[in-house]
Amino acid sequence: MSRLLEQAPQVLAAGVDLFAEAIEAQGTTVQRVEWRPPMTGCEADLARVMSDRRRVGANLEALQRIVSTDAELIDVLPAGEVLGLAGNDFLHAGPPIGWDRASGPLRGALLGAAALEGLVAEPKDAEALFASGTGYTLEPCHHHGAVGPMAGVISASMWVFVVADPATGRRTYCTLNEGLGKVLRYGAYGPEVLSRLRWMSDVLAPLLQTAVRARGPVDLRAILAQMVQMGDEAHNRNRAGTLMLLRELLPAMVESGAPSSQVAEAVRFVSANDHFFLNLAMPACKLTLDSARGIAGSTIVVAMARNGTDFGIQTAGTGDEWFTGPAQLAEGLFLGSYGPEDANPDIGDSAITETAGLGGFAMAAAPAIVRFVGGQVSDALNASRRMYEITIGEHPMYAIPILDFRGTPTGIDVTKVVRTQILPQINTGMAGKQAGVGQVGAGLVTPPAEVFPKALAALAHLVR
Amino acid sequence: MSRLLEQAPQVLAAGVDLFAEAIEAQGTTVQRVEWRPPMTGCEADLARVMSDRRRVGANLEALQRIVSTDAELIDVLPAGEVLGLAGNDFLHAGPPIGWDRASGPLRGALLGAAALEGLVAEPKDAEALFASGTGYTLEPCHHHGAVGPMAGVISASMWVFVVADPATGRRTYCTLNEGLGKVLRYGAYGPEVLSRLRWMSDVLAPLLQTAVRARGPVDLRAILAQMVQMGDEAHNRNRAGTLMLLRELLPAMVESGAPSSQVAEAVRFVSANDHFFLNLAMPACKLTLDSARGIAGSTIVVAMARNGTDFGIQTAGTGDEWFTGPAQLAEGLFLGSYGPEDANPDIGDSAITETAGLGGFAMAAAPAIVRFVGGQVSDALNASRRMYEITIGEHPMYAIPILDFRGTPTGIDVTKVVRTQILPQINTGMAGKQAGVGQVGAGLVTPPAEVFPKALAALAHLVR
Repeated sequence: MSRLLEQAPQVLAAGVDLFAEAIEAQGTTVQRVEWRPPMTGCEADLARVMSDRRRVGANLEALQRIVSTDAELIDVLPAGEVLGLAGNDFLHAGPPIGWDRASGPLRGALLGAAALEGLVAEPKDAEALFASGTGYTLEPCHHHGAVGPMAGVISASMWVFVVADPATGRRTYCTLNEGLGKVLRYGAYGPEVLSRLRWMSDVLAPLLQTAVRARGPVDLRAILAQMVQMGDEAHNRNRAGTLMLLRELLPAMVESGAPSSQVAEAVRFVSANDHFFLNLAMPACKLTLDSARGIAGSTIVVAMARNGTDFGIQTAGTGDEWFTGPAQLAEGLFLGSYGPEDANPDIGDSAITETAGLGGFAMAAAPAIVRFVGGQVSDALNASRRMYEITIGEHPMYAIPILDFRGTPTGIDVTKVVRTQILPQINTGMAGKQAGVGQVGAGLVTPPAEVFPKALAALAHLVR
Repeated sequence: MSRLLEQAPQVLAAGVDLFAEAIEAQGTTVQRVEWRPPMTGCEADLARVMSDRRRVGANLEALQRIVSTDAELIDVLPAGEVLGLAGNDFLHAGPPIGWDRASGPLRGALLGAAALEGLVAEPKDAEALFASGTGYTLEPCHHHGAVGPMAGVISASMWVFVVADPATGRRTYCTLNEGLGKVLRYGAYGPEVLSRLRWMSDVLAPLLQTAVRARGPVDLRAILAQMVQMGDEAHNRNRAGTLMLLRELLPAMVESGAPSSQVAEAVRFVSANDHFFLNLAMPACKLTLDSARGIAGSTIVVAMARNGTDFGIQTAGTGDEWFTGPAQLAEGLFLGSYGPEDANPDIGDSAITETAGLGGFAMAAAPAIVRFVGGQVSDALNASRRMYEITIGEHPMYAIPILDFRGTPTGIDVTKVVRTQILPQINTGMAGKQAGVGQVGAGLVTPPAEVFPKALAALAHLVR
């Protein structure tokens, strides 16, 4: 106490400016702190969850598992075989939804997939089937250990990457990336979309299978770590990642015994698509996050996913329950003559990258991303810096050079989001809202704020 | 004048602090400006060159040529064939030098090259030949349109990349990169070094020749522009560049008709060497800089090169004259148990990258470089920012994301170096000073300051 009286006062001020100004008028320096009250109505749940004696330990356990789980590409297999899908079983991105509430791009992708599986001759013919609500199944990718970008539709004849944790054998799955523009995952289903998918199943995927099996497991987290040094954030920039994947698989592709024309065609296809690695970043992120599922008392988010209508999150401490709200419209840059009126609300499982400390959370590592999603370079730096406010740690493998090799912000804490009102920053592609259109742009989006109080309430209910 | 009296004074202070402090004591804000006097003894030459009415126009012409010259990889050929070298003709990095003054790594590389060309059975046996001063030629790469990293030795049976300006047909040349560690360019000449060089001439280079000819010209500046977005500065980081080169050449390599085992071996070799693209960045930089040679009145540097003993520069306005001083020791990080006492002074033509606005000048684009050459991330940013003080423009194709896409500092102006005493920042590898050792580290270095007053004096002499 005596030292307090000897020293000059050191003043921190939060909230309204009036208090800070009054002290400054008396000649004292005031350090202003950015602060907002917690989300309205959450005070009781927040107090209850914050007082949960399991919370700190559970969250550290969750973070430890997330950052230490390895993810290896071990195989490429048909979805029908590895996920047990019949020709009329369809998986989709995001939380559960039926045809009746499905957005345009999800409907478009389902129509295309139905034609791909031979259920109908023309994609449009499948509308009646899906509207009938019978004769098919439609479930989230996440419920089958899988993730899918944008519409995220997986059907039996598509092939998937098989990603595994070598320590436990746990697996996750994702389709192969089709490229940009008019592609199934953005809701396009024209003849060129379906013929590309057939070539991928007939030529590309079997060739990759041969290469992966001959080469042995590919360490995806090592590639992700390098990407963060090379301007990729692994959601909307996967340029270096795609090149590094090619580097790993090429010798085995060349020696596969496949005709050199097919090898060259495959190399050209992958080379021409800077997003090819996204479909490996996603299952790698899911694999690491799934390791934190089921930790009682943990308030860490283990999935963020959108079906084009709803945005849903799951937490480590609340099992398989989804907490949902309306998917938001992204703000960003549009292709060609498209504009905001053409865009569908946020869609896809790809926000799993942000959930794992990449994507929008790693934007400072990828300042060139602003030329794809809009904004200024300073926005990219600030986005990453802001995410440290709502995460419980830093990813030791994903070091951002420009932030003096600080690890990316990792482990979104529901309590921190509710307390600060800072929402996770997601980099995303934008699909056209009409089925059949394809990609219309790319930009930035956040979850609907309400999903976090909902998750908090469930967590509060579970406090003993 | 009347407005001057109405306004509060705005004070800039340069030089000693006393003046600034005196004004601050009177309650006026002083903006301090970093300033140093020009290099001692250069005042008269500086005044003469600065008053040259050709200077501004000549320098703008030089910059315009440097930034607008395209550089394409068009072929891969044996040096003997394309440079007209006989088995006893040797090229080396840097300004002219004889065996008597040659440093350890240059001597080591020459011994190895003599054995490679079959002049002697064992590299050591060639010492007598070189010491005799007869029976061979030894000339700078730069005198033959070529550049070579580190020792930069080129002999007849080595193959070289052929880089051309499509507008004029002008060409430059560089050997293929051998990788790191015990390699000829770092002065090593053991059996593994020579057998690697033979494999490169017998297998790798002919395969690349077939691929380049089948594919057509590869736009190297487009790759360099992408590299600057992907964390490469094209001198000590060429990781993304190497991957992009592979992407361009792979389909044609696969379809070359060569045995798939050879294609796979070549892909593995290039893939395992993140510096492979350096030997394309260098001739591309030389090609653009050579376009500015011979512009009367221009004070722009068109070459910086080191032979391990001397550091030399050439300017646009002084023809083929070299201005030299003693090569400096780099400061940086050492491999294994090597230390500063093991390092040779600065060596190699690779400072052509800095001369063209890349390398140390583009460090802000490659903050991860500090893990290779030492220092802090802030040093990398500051290095690029400081280089704007001694260059006359920015490279429109090489945009640094973290500096809000500002172009890299390009066109080193001798007058600016002399006026500011700021020396060009070079990222470099460090060779062992003993012949045969190989690489011992990597770090940062500058030219000896005296080369700039020497060039300035020659420029002053030419002012009409």
